[in-house]
Amino acid sequence: MPVKVFGSPASAEVARVMACLFEKDVEFQLIRVDSFRGPKRLERPKLHPHGESITFDDGQATLVESRKILRHIAGAEKYKNQGNKLLFGPGALERASIEQWLQTEEQNFNVPSAEMLYSLSFLSPDMALDGGRRGAAAAGMHPAHRQHMQKMEEMRQRYEKSVRELDKLFNIYEQRLYEAAYLAGDTFTLADLSHLPNADAIASDPRSQHLITSRENVSRWWYNISNRPSWKRIKELQRPPSAEAPF
Amino acid sequence: MPVKVFGSPASAEVARVMACLFEKDVEFQLIRVDSFRGPKRLERPKLHPHGESITFDDGQATLVESRKILRHIAGAEKYKNQGNKLLFGPGALERASIEQWLQTEEQNFNVPSAEMLYSLSFLSPDMALDGGRRGAAAAGMHPAHRQHMQKMEEMRQRYEKSVRELDKLFNIYEQRLYEAAYLAGDTFTLADLSHLPNADAIASDPRSQHLITSRENVSRWWYNISNRPSWKRIKELQRPPSAEAPF
Repeated sequence: MPVKVFGSPASAEVARVMACLFEKDVEFQLIRVDSFRGPKRLERPKLHPHGESITFDDGQATLVESRKILRHIAGAEKYKNQGNKLLFGPGALERASIEQWLQTEEQNFNVPSAEMLYSLSFLSPDMALDGGRRGAAAAGMHPAHRQHMQKMEEMRQRYEKSVRELDKLFNIYEQRLYEAAYLAGDTFTLADLSHLPNADAIASDPRSQHLITSRENVSRWWYNISNRPSWKRIKELQRPPSAEAPF
Repeated sequence: MPVKVFGSPASAEVARVMACLFEKDVEFQLIRVDSFRGPKRLERPKLHPHGESITFDDGQATLVESRKILRHIAGAEKYKNQGNKLLFGPGALERASIEQWLQTEEQNFNVPSAEMLYSLSFLSPDMALDGGRRGAAAAGMHPAHRQHMQKMEEMRQRYEKSVRELDKLFNIYEQRLYEAAYLAGDTFTLADLSHLPNADAIASDPRSQHLITSRENVSRWWYNISNRPSWKRIKELQRPPSAEAPF
């Protein structure tokens, strides 16, 4: 039975798993379901930073959590001689380091980055950086307008809180990436790969890309991991047909 | 159970059925399967003029032939009060005329148009119209080159044969569309809809579009049916991500 992935490549969860399957040169089928009504697509394809569901099935295991799937694929005996052989380390020592950074990604990077991307999806291109708008919600405006301004203010605060958390985290990354080319050492591993979907969204938005571009070693690391053929292929698959608005 | 369509919108069979579901404002799920290996997609999405398989399942019937599916959807009691109510005619008399033209499409248009589009996919942008290349296969050239030239010559003959058949058929259409706005009468019906996938491919290729543009009434008809929102939506869905070569 071929490996099956159910989901959309626009989902961070699915993109993470597909990047791993590409790296490991594993043949797989991507099964996508789109719902339509009249001339409309009911669920627009867009980036789901908080993760849209994935189901992975290779006939032996059915898994629904992307990082568990990464470990399953990269650690599988049957794929050990194909594709990228160092994704999960050549030995136990390296694997321990990869595990540590994989958990850092899951616990310290994924939550604030998803939170930031979520809040940015509500904010206008300049609003998040425009302090002058603060407090405007107090003026004598239409209730619907006031409600909207309050929602924007809340999103702004969520954005700023997550930026502070990411700033601290990226300072640690900057130091680590001064010592080593990649998070877990000299080679690209699952630890780096797992960052790709949300880091890509951060790097693609002018309102957040400074988190990466202001740091020399993080920038170099990002350049190296985002230019891997596996990830570039996923970016192509995520691109909506040109007539549709970009997500 | 929601209506399910298994296949790719790049397939003429699937596009035909989706156009009908859009016209009838029926909610449905499109289930697509793409196979990948390493960073490659194993089956490139492209237009399959001879038809790539479709499976339709609405919980009551499982059908695999696109025109049967059109009749099933447009004639269904449960959808009779929604969407386009005239697709399969308001009465038995109109339905007889629609059936006649639907069968003309299947028997006299589909075969030569699929055959022409297939042969065009092998021919270079100017080759099909360049008589000067004929006979070149006889010269003292490398066997592989000769074989290629013979294949091109065969494709050229298939192209010319199908153009002759389509020319005759479009002369009949031109007369019919002088008498009526659409093939089966005053309104757009399944008879017109069923032509959309292959007629669109004919109109999109500079080597074949003269079949339509040289005829006044066929041109007007084509303009009207191809600009329906249902078909424009399918054209968007067929467009590959911009990084991929157009089909």
